[in-house]
Amino acid sequence: MIQTPIRLGMVGGGLGAMIGEVHRIAARLDGRFDLIAGALSSTPRRNAESAAAIGLAPERTYDDFVEMARAEAARPDGIEAVSICTPNHLHFPAAKAFLEAGIHVICDKPMTSTLNDARALARIVETSEALFVLTHNYSAYPQLRLAREMVARGDLGQIRLVQVEYAQDWLTEVAHSKQAAWRVDPAKAGAGGAIGDIGTHAWQLARFVSGMVPERIAADLTSFVPGRRVDDNAQVMLRYASGAKGALWCSQVAPGSENGLTLRIYGDRAGLVWTHETPETLWFTRLGEPAQKLRRGAATMAGSRVPPGHPEGYLEGFANIYAEAADAIRARQTGQPYESLLPGIRDGVEGLEFIDACLRSAASDNAWVEIGHV
Amino acid sequence: MIQTPIRLGMVGGGLGAMIGEVHRIAARLDGRFDLIAGALSSTPRRNAESAAAIGLAPERTYDDFVEMARAEAARPDGIEAVSICTPNHLHFPAAKAFLEAGIHVICDKPMTSTLNDARALARIVETSEALFVLTHNYSAYPQLRLAREMVARGDLGQIRLVQVEYAQDWLTEVAHSKQAAWRVDPAKAGAGGAIGDIGTHAWQLARFVSGMVPERIAADLTSFVPGRRVDDNAQVMLRYASGAKGALWCSQVAPGSENGLTLRIYGDRAGLVWTHETPETLWFTRLGEPAQKLRRGAATMAGSRVPPGHPEGYLEGFANIYAEAADAIRARQTGQPYESLLPGIRDGVEGLEFIDACLRSAASDNAWVEIGHV
Amino acid sequence: MIQTPIRLGMVGGGLGAMIGEVHRIAARLDGRFDLIAGALSSTPRRNAESAAAIGLAPERTYDDFVEMARAEAARPDGIEAVSICTPNHLHFPAAKAFLEAGIHVICDKPMTSTLNDARALARIVETSEALFVLTHNYSAYPQLRLAREMVARGDLGQIRLVQVEYAQDWLTEVAHSKQAAWRVDPAKAGAGGAIGDIGTHAWQLARFVSGMVPERIAADLTSFVPGRRVDDNAQVMLRYASGAKGALWCSQVAPGSENGLTLRIYGDRAGLVWTHETPETLWFTRLGEPAQKLRRGAATMAGSRVPPGHPEGYLEGFANIYAEAADAIRARQTGQPYESLLPGIRDGVEGLEFIDACLRSAASDNAWVEIGHV
Amino acid sequence: MIQTPIRLGMVGGGLGAMIGEVHRIAARLDGRFDLIAGALSSTPRRNAESAAAIGLAPERTYDDFVEMARAEAARPDGIEAVSICTPNHLHFPAAKAFLEAGIHVICDKPMTSTLNDARALARIVETSEALFVLTHNYSAYPQLRLAREMVARGDLGQIRLVQVEYAQDWLTEVAHSKQAAWRVDPAKAGAGGAIGDIGTHAWQLARFVSGMVPERIAADLTSFVPGRRVDDNAQVMLRYASGAKGALWCSQVAPGSENGLTLRIYGDRAGLVWTHETPETLWFTRLGEPAQKLRRGAATMAGSRVPPGHPEGYLEGFANIYAEAADAIRARQTGQPYESLLPGIRDGVEGLEFIDACLRSAASDNAWVEIGHV
Repeated sequence: MIQTPIRLGMVGGGLGAMIGEVHRIAARLDGRFDLIAGALSSTPRRNAESAAAIGLAPERTYDDFVEMARAEAARPDGIEAVSICTPNHLHFPAAKAFLEAGIHVICDKPMTSTLNDARALARIVETSEALFVLTHNYSAYPQLRLAREMVARGDLGQIRLVQVEYAQDWLTEVAHSKQAAWRVDPAKAGAGGAIGDIGTHAWQLARFVSGMVPERIAADLTSFVPGRRVDDNAQVMLRYASGAKGALWCSQVAPGSENGLTLRIYGDRAGLVWTHETPETLWFTRLGEPAQKLRRGAATMAGSRVPPGHPEGYLEGFANIYAEAADAIRARQTGQPYESLLPGIRDGVEGLEFIDACLRSAASDNAWVEIGHV
Repeated sequence: MIQTPIRLGMVGGGLGAMIGEVHRIAARLDGRFDLIAGALSSTPRRNAESAAAIGLAPERTYDDFVEMARAEAARPDGIEAVSICTPNHLHFPAAKAFLEAGIHVICDKPMTSTLNDARALARIVETSEALFVLTHNYSAYPQLRLAREMVARGDLGQIRLVQVEYAQDWLTEVAHSKQAAWRVDPAKAGAGGAIGDIGTHAWQLARFVSGMVPERIAADLTSFVPGRRVDDNAQVMLRYASGAKGALWCSQVAPGSENGLTLRIYGDRAGLVWTHETPETLWFTRLGEPAQKLRRGAATMAGSRVPPGHPEGYLEGFANIYAEAADAIRARQTGQPYESLLPGIRDGVEGLEFIDACLRSAASDNAWVEIGHV
Repeated sequence: MIQTPIRLGMVGGGLGAMIGEVHRIAARLDGRFDLIAGALSSTPRRNAESAAAIGLAPERTYDDFVEMARAEAARPDGIEAVSICTPNHLHFPAAKAFLEAGIHVICDKPMTSTLNDARALARIVETSEALFVLTHNYSAYPQLRLAREMVARGDLGQIRLVQVEYAQDWLTEVAHSKQAAWRVDPAKAGAGGAIGDIGTHAWQLARFVSGMVPERIAADLTSFVPGRRVDDNAQVMLRYASGAKGALWCSQVAPGSENGLTLRIYGDRAGLVWTHETPETLWFTRLGEPAQKLRRGAATMAGSRVPPGHPEGYLEGFANIYAEAADAIRARQTGQPYESLLPGIRDGVEGLEFIDACLRSAASDNAWVEIGHV
Repeated sequence: MIQTPIRLGMVGGGLGAMIGEVHRIAARLDGRFDLIAGALSSTPRRNAESAAAIGLAPERTYDDFVEMARAEAARPDGIEAVSICTPNHLHFPAAKAFLEAGIHVICDKPMTSTLNDARALARIVETSEALFVLTHNYSAYPQLRLAREMVARGDLGQIRLVQVEYAQDWLTEVAHSKQAAWRVDPAKAGAGGAIGDIGTHAWQLARFVSGMVPERIAADLTSFVPGRRVDDNAQVMLRYASGAKGALWCSQVAPGSENGLTLRIYGDRAGLVWTHETPETLWFTRLGEPAQKLRRGAATMAGSRVPPGHPEGYLEGFANIYAEAADAIRARQTGQPYESLLPGIRDGVEGLEFIDACLRSAASDNAWVEIGHV
């Protein structure tokens, strides 16, 4: 039996934003949410235009997200959940406002702009009855879920190596778009540039699939573009408590790279390779055997909508997060148990710990620093 | 300013169907339609279950599509458009019923189960005020739209060769699923098997991109699986009036092929290659120059929702058809001009002409037969 | 214990030829031959230059291959084998001369320029004590040898489909090079253009791997380039006695195609795909299982010189023919049994039967014609 | 006019070796060398067997390479050049012996087993009249030569990033083959394991193409296989004097990796990607333009033997080194000028500087160390 769609609000994601529209499509794709309220843009006039463009009623359009949280919580038909798609520095106050109002939060990453905020948010989440979901969407690709499962059940043997990278080229030159502008402004993005915007995705994915967080890292951060105040490239070496090693490279200045997230994990018995350009293929090679091309939908349709050979991609992966969030919200509302792989507050804190550790290592000429021990 | 969603009904696409859910997601993805009525399954009990599963109100759930067309046309809040996702033999009567009721039709392919029906439908469409859209979804992939444009503006020079193929493996053995069952039953699928189910896609795509319909074809049809009453493999040679040549291969018995649609077009100056496994890449090679990898979203975002490197796929392509259908319907309703590349009645008739020609050629030991001259 | 190199002569392959140098490298690569005599070019002056360029002694340089066969056969240190790399029309008289002189022949393809010559040559080979090897080099790629073995032992089940193609672009325009000139001159190439030059390779390979020769074919031959007197494109449909079907496409006018030989074979249990651009990979998919990437050298080093990951290619495949020819010659000389997969007179006759059938089918508007029954 | 083949000797490369046979094929492929003398194996009996297997005359078979250098130098028909293919620790004494005897040396890498030896050898080369060539064969792949040229002429703009990696899996477990045994024995391989065996290739290639040597590196070396006394994995971060950054990863314990050398270079205007699995393709992307697939032989046949689409690989690349060495030797012998890109003593010293710096960095918990300043 189909469930009634969840009443959804949105903070950020106004005209000119890219990720807001992604959240809206993802929410809509499986029909589990109705978007009915929002505080989309930062000026009243722009906000009204943005709301009109996506069909929000004027009385459900708010110039201020704190007011929105209060007003919606007070309505009998108020939103049950909110998507937060603002620049990073507003994630914390917005998430705080809604969580404290008992409204479930689906928040973009990186979770906050400082580690302190992340930890403060963790305390709020701990005591809130509302759910907190972080849209590390890549971890919802079926083949990366499969990879995680294979690692967990020992198909690779003892993990030795985690090589992860995320390369783009859209900030190779001084960029002027709205999307670019706040990402290179420390006041809005936080102190991390590439490490925050895409490095946290790589970090989360490596942990999600490997099941391990590095114990120590050493990071070399660079701002290649003249005048840029945040890093646009990072080389990071990883050491795990188990003795495993790894490397993380993220860059926004690598011409020819579109959205090049690649994860390779090697154990003492087998290796796995996944790359975003072909997200529906997971390469699996047992030592001494032929590589196998594991395809989405071939073994299981979990997380899939159409059979193998009918390409799914970024929006479907993102929609998987929303679909599971809907399940989780309904389960929470009805007091039923619900297990999921949804990324959440833990992923968010870990992401900020990663950014913080990169900055500390960079500040000490790339020395090894411990994760999380500030 | 966002437009009010179009009120949509659905015929077919009940529980157990694959393509009905594809139509629903495609309709929902851009928020341009609200699905509010349906005649989904062939028995009342199953129909009620199917309707409940997708949240249709019982009073908008119909056991009979003729009754549905009548009733909805009579309601002030009746559906404006209908999606037809039944087995092939019902496309014609359903489309007829809704078109005659003045309701816009979005129909799955092949358009009808006989060429006579196709031609009859063409006459109905000609005199109807309602639109008729045929979901040849592949022609809405941005890189195939680009390919079409490149051919049309002469980037390839004079076209000499059109090589198109569509290979699957899901009918390699006797198949028992609901989806398989009607496709191999001539009473429901029409006299064509693979040529109808996937050959028409290949045929439409070759025409869409090349801008040319073959003048004559010679077809070798085979039913490899014992007891199968329709073809599951076809080799077809193509001759164009211009002197161009080509080949079309479609198969549902090629193990290792998922949904392998590939189109290659060669002119006297350049060649184009597109394959469904990597739908966002169009390979373009000018004679004597390096191959270029033309990527979705790189030159234009037309038909795209997210930037290059964020994979879009089958559902997004399908949704492009729905989004354009929405634009076309709104334009028709308001009397505004609207140009589009939407596949429609012409594609549908051509598809049946292809099936018919294949059957005629096969009946005369693979002789060359003319297209459309029955 | 290493064997003494075989004394080798060469007919054709003078300055400006491409394939002659390929034969020389292939002969040299494994150190099994010493090239010591030749009739390389068609005029005495050019012949002397060609011989000097590769270091042949003047007294072993002949202006006429018949004289060469006679003279070398009479010398105690005369050549034991000869490579024939002339334009097609000279293959027959040259092969005849050397075979009748008791000298082993390694001949380029197509074997002769007419089917009559091919059959005449077959009778000569039958009664000669000398070996006849035809350089269908692709069949010596290790992964195609593996494919053949897999088909033979039933890994694919009953073979249903053989799709083979060979696409190039170097004759897209009127071509003036020495290599191009004779290939489009029926007096030198024979009546077949693309079907002779590359179609015979595709034909041989399909037979080599599938183990089957089609019973009937229907061929559509085209000369796209104005003024060209031989075909530069062919679409061919294949029917096998077993009920299997197939298609062969060869083209020399497909811009963006370098040397694009691709073979796909499908049975009722599994499929195989091999393509020349990545010759060391054989894709194998059992119905319902993940595709496996079978790599050269991984399971066996047969036909390999270096481990997987150290790319081997065209010259190594060609050299495999020469290495096996050396083994075969030494075995013949010492009266020892020797089994091999070397292509020879049978492949040559079959190739001319293919050309002949294509021409007969084309002459009767593409009707089905039987193979070999002229 | 063809030149007389160069008389060649070989040290190392006896039965059971892999790389010795590679040198022999490379020397033979273009017909520029005759192998006539050798000290192939480490025991007299084995040496005699190895020599017989490749057809060396007993009187040109030596049990000791010092004796070989002396004897051959004294013969009027003595070798002109020698190939050194022993385990690493013998490269230095062997190269010294032949260079001091005036015999040209073609030596495998890494050049020596210690940096001291490397520097000592550099002094010997400086004063010798004989040439010293180091077989960093990858730098002779035509597409990497092209890459170097493109960087040098500024096609990429200012270089910012150099990402190089070399991953294999053949030492994932304790290995017992002859080839494996000495490579993991510090007495024979030197103190470096993977960094010496494959890391030096990656290092050399990055320098060759980028034109830059890093100023400082930080290296994390690991021996994953229990009991192994040398590194089998290394993560290395690179800093260039220009401000460019980079990373080098080499591993012999990455299951599924065959011989995975990949180089990516990014400037502020364009990027280049080359990977060994498809060595004939160089990917080039100007910022904001489609990626171009630059193929071997397409623009120039330099370093090629056959046209594009006829795959060349590892042995052809290796043979390019030998062919150029032959040119260089003949030029030296005749006092003619000769410019080439042949790797030599500088590459060798740099390789040992790399190994040395890795070991120093690893010894100080991965601190940044300067290259070459010991």
